Order: sequence, then C-alpha cells, then structure tokens
Amino acid sequence: MKQLLAYVLIAGLISCTGTTPPAAGNRDPLPSWNEGQTKESIIQFVLEVTNEAGPDYVPVKDRIAVFDNDGNLWSEKPVYFQLLFAMDQVRKLADQHPEWKTEQPFKAVLENDMETLASFGEHGILELVMATHAGNTTEEFEYTVKNWLSTARHPRFDRPYTDLVFQPMLELISYLQDNQFKTFIVSGGGLDFMRPWVEEVYNIPRDQVVGSSIKTEFVFEDGIPVLKKLPEIDFIDDKEGKPVGIHKFIGRRPIFCSGNSDGDLAMMQWTAAGDGPRFMLYLHHTDSVREWAYDRNSSVGRLDKGLDAAVENGWTLIDIQNDWKLIYPFEKPQ
Amino acid sequence: MKQLLAYVLIAGLISCTGTTPPAAGNRDPLPSWNEGQTKESIIQFVLEVTNEAGPDYVPVKDRIAVFDNDGNLWSEKPVYFQLLFAMDQVRKLADQHPEWKTEQPFKAVLENDMETLASFGEHGILELVMATHAGNTTEEFEYTVKNWLSTARHPRFDRPYTDLVFQPMLELISYLQDNQFKTFIVSGGGLDFMRPWVEEVYNIPRDQVVGSSIKTEFVFEDGIPVLKKLPEIDFIDDKEGKPVGIHKFIGRRPIFCSGNSDGDLAMMQWTAAGDGPRFMLYLHHTDSVREWAYDRNSSVGRLDKGLDAAVENGWTLIDIQNDWKLIYPFEKPQ
Repeated sequence: MKQLLAYVLIAGLISCTGTTPPAAGNRDPLPSWNEGQTKESIIQFVLEVTNEAGPDYVPVKDRIAVFDNDGNLWSEKPVYFQLLFAMDQVRKLADQHPEWKTEQPFKAVLENDMETLASFGEHGILELVMATHAGNTTEEFEYTVKNWLSTARHPRFDRPYTDLVFQPMLELISYLQDNQFKTFIVSGGGLDFMRPWVEEVYNIPRDQVVGSSIKTEFVFEDGIPVLKKLPEIDFIDDKEGKPVGIHKFIGRRPIFCSGNSDGDLAMMQWTAAGDGPRFMLYLHHTDSVREWAYDRNSSVGRLDKGLDAAVENGWTLIDIQNDWKLIYPFEKPQ
Repeated sequence: MKQLLAYVLIAGLISCTGTTPPAAGNRDPLPSWNEGQTKESIIQFVLEVTNEAGPDYVPVKDRIAVFDNDGNLWSEKPVYFQLLFAMDQVRKLADQHPEWKTEQPFKAVLENDMETLASFGEHGILELVMATHAGNTTEEFEYTVKNWLSTARHPRFDRPYTDLVFQPMLELISYLQDNQFKTFIVSGGGLDFMRPWVEEVYNIPRDQVVGSSIKTEFVFEDGIPVLKKLPEIDFIDDKEGKPVGIHKFIGRRPIFCSGNSDGDLAMMQWTAAGDGPRFMLYLHHTDSVREWAYDRNSSVGRLDKGLDAAVENGWTLIDIQNDWKLIYPFEKPQ
C-alpha cells in the first residue's frame, strides 16, 4: 500500500500549509473500503487535485462531484424505493379510482407486478406521483414523504429505507467534502421525494439535489401563497437528461462522477469530456449475499452499456463484493 | 444609533463563542450605507437570527437569502443589460436575416426602439437569444457572453457593464455570507447570461443562480459530447415563476428576500408567508442624479404593486438617495 503511505505523508505536509481541513489528517478517510486499487485510485485522485504544487491541482470552485442516488447511494431492490412509496399512495386512493384496475401503470401497482412497473422507468413513477399528488401543495407532499419514510419498512431487511444507504459511499461523500468538493446528487428520482431526507442522511444540502420533477404553480389559497403540484411533467433527470440537469442546476461540469447504471452513462461521458483531471466511478452490484448482484439484465438499475464504456475507457469500477468491508451503517461493529 | 451600538456589543459577545466568523467583529459591515432605519433594520435582523440564545435564532441551513439581479444588484437602465447584449447579437446576424426588418422583436432592435423592446419583457429577451444562439453549444454561448462583457461599454458611464453593480449590495451579500447565509440570485435574466461573471463579481457560486433559460440537448458532435441550445423556452423565472424557481432550484423557503420590481412581488410574498423571522427588502430607485429615479411608470423594472405591498406590509424599502453613500464601486475614494 505504497500509495496509501504516500497519501498519509503528503496529507501531513499539505495540512501544515493550513489549506487542507483537519479531516485530511492521517486517519483512513475510507475505513469501510478494503485496501486495493479502487480505494487507492480514489485517494490518489483527491490528493492530486488538492495538491497546490502539483500539475493536476483543481481550484476549489471547480471541485464539483455528482452522485446518482438509486443503487448508488442506497439500494434499489426489489425496485426503486420511490416506486414503493408511490405504490403505497396509489393503494391508499384506489377505492376512489375504479378505473385504475384496468389502466397502466396503476393496474401493475394493484397487482403488485414489480417487473411491469420497473419497465415504465422514471416516467412511470412520475405518473403515479402525478395521479396521487397533483393538487397537493409542496408542503403537503413533503409531509407525506416524511411520514412514509418514518413508517414504511424494506421487505427484505425490515428496516426504514433510509437505513439502506451505503456506508462506504457516505464515507466517500464526506471525504470529498473534507477536501472542499461541493457534492451534488443527480438522480432520476423525484426532487421533492429526495429533499426531505438527503440533508440528514447524506449531509448534502437540499439545494444541491438535481432530480426529476412535475410542474408547480404559485397560487393563493385562502389568502395564503402556496405552490401546488400540477399533473404535468417538468423535467426527467435521467440518461441524456442528466448532463442537461447538471448544466441547468449546477452550471459547471463535474470533475468527479459516481453512478451505477446506464442511466448515468451520459453524465459520465459529460464529466469525462472536460479538460484536466477527472474521475468516473461506476458501482457494480456484485454481492448477492450482503446486497444484490445484477447488471446487464436487470430491469432496475441496468448496467450494460455503462459497463462496456467503463471497461473501454478505463473508468474505475467498484466491485461491491471485493471493495467494501460492509454495506450498510447498521453492520458497523457497535 | 443605539441599535448599532448593541450590534457591536452583541457581535463581540457572539464572536467569543466561536460560532460567528471573524468578519462579524466590530467593524461596520455596511460602510457604504448611511446610518438610519434601513441599515439598522438589516443589522437588527441579522443579529436576531444569528443569536443562538434569542427567540428568533435560525439554524444555518435555513439561512437562505435570495436577490433579484437587474435593478437590484446592478443597474437596469436604459434597458436590461442582457437586452443590450442580445441586441448586439441580433445586429451581428441581421444581414443573414432580411425578415427581421419587419418581424418583432427584431424590428425594434434594428430600429433601436428600446421602449417597444422593454415591453416584451423577459420573454422578448429569450426570443432574441433563441434566434441568435440556438444551435450553439453552452460553451460557445459562455464565450460570447464573456467576450461581450469585456468589450461592451455602458452608454451613460462608458464603462463595462459589470462596473455598474451596487457597492452597498455587494456589502450586504458579503455581510449575510459572513453570517452563514447561503446567498442566491433569483433573476428573470438568463441563467447562462449570468453564470459566466456572477462568481467573480458578486462572490455567488454558479450553482446558486436561478434564472430564465432555454432548453438544451445532450448530443455528440464529432464524437465529443456537447450541450446544444434549442429554440425552445425552458423556464421563465419572473413574477409567479420566481417562487416556482426557488422551490425547484433551492428547495427551501428563503428568510431574506431582496428585489426592486413587481417581478419580485411573488417571491416577496412567498418569503413573507413562512414561519419565524423573515426580511423583505425592496429597493426603490430614487436617485436621478447618481443613478436613475423610476418606479410606477417605468417600462423597465416597474415598481407599482410591489411598492403598495411594501408599504402595506411594513417591508423595508431602500431609498437609494438617502440610504446609500455611494452607488458603484468606482465611486469609492481611492
């Protein structure tokens, strides 16, 4: 682990200049990652872009890191957690909508047909959200999300969904933040579904979230201004939409991109095509015991073209089984 | 100036706790503002929301401040500076578009008819931008904006447009930032027109800008991924669009809102309607000598309903003539 030793030495030197925050001291910044090429290449990159004296130094304002969410910062099986949320909302209102028994994607919800539902992608989720929440204010929707998260349990782990975030990725976010990266989520998931909890769970501010959304409208209700959700799609932040969303919300090309599916390929390409040092990190779900193993044939989080592109371009691949000591925070020794 | 004295004393106490950054020491945080009610009320508000022991303390994550740009952080006469930019672009391409001689808003550009142009509002500006820049990549557009700003001169002051920012507002932004507010621009102006220079001029990061935009598309050009501007409006961040934009880009209701026209009224109302302490600040252009004097009858930056609402609700009004010692940074004594 010559590189890790070099890291400790260089970090020690850098910290004396006062430009690097205390966290970059000599403790291991990624304790839940096994030693190996993946971990080393991440640390090497961070050392290079933060080394003011080196050829690959990147000014703080350009240290933009983007992270996909579903399957990248938390699990996404049996299906996207937001889809499970939307399904619960549909079930609650099904009595008032007899037509849902024959109309997709509602029919699939009522029949618990995950495979069909997953095939509708982010668009299907938004349709369910629109059908169940158009007319609600943004604050009512936030309340519904928080309420669901505090009561719903994951079918396999019997825990709140927010327990199923990846401990090694939490460490990576924190490590980048300690090195003055500005960290963003760039997810196909709903903006308003993520914002109520990402701050507490990932330490990523609400305004550093890019996601899919439906339109809202500013109106007065009993003399009080509210934002009402409309039954109209505003933006789908998936595939080619991701670099578009990055440009719109962030306005600067990332130098660090982390994702796990073909939906992240365009933002990987967009990140890779910039000047100077950059890091593309694809997470490969390889652990059928501790998490799930899937890639080219999965209807949720398919990694097919992205896997080819990663290999072809020499991007870094996380192999969960080999690279991670543990998956979830609750596995940490007490 | 009892309140200012109190400020100095309390700031001194707070700074001892280590939670307030050094800038909140006992120097005057707003040196270009005359002593008086406007300055005092701003300082009073900041003291209250940052005083951990007080009833109006606001946690750092909720300290969101939003600023309109045109006529609020820089001047907007004779017309919005972005309109002058767009007019220059239209003139450059006019030979290739004989139809512009009879089509609005191009006809008004070629006839230098500012009054008519101003009447088209943000929508008119976007139309000019679309006509001149659809098909360009986002990077080409950024280059065009930077190039224009480095060569164009304001007709009255014969200086670069970015010289015409308001020194007292720069101090206000900096004062809020020193007190751990996260500062955002929320402008009807174009996102991609503002981002190339706001960071340097206002010290507001590119991702903390909300504005109007046209759509972009992610495509490969000669094997290189680019974002191309499309001739289609994406979002108009004006009037009722401002709270919508705030929700979409920031995802949290501001506690401090600064604007100068009726276009800012909806975001003032949205800010005002939240719980806890909040500050609504309307800038009134009252100085016909050092800047411009205009309000209810101006086609650019009209302040009519907003002025009524400010008076009715007891919002703070900046009276430029009385409240500001100087307007532009270049007036500062050398």
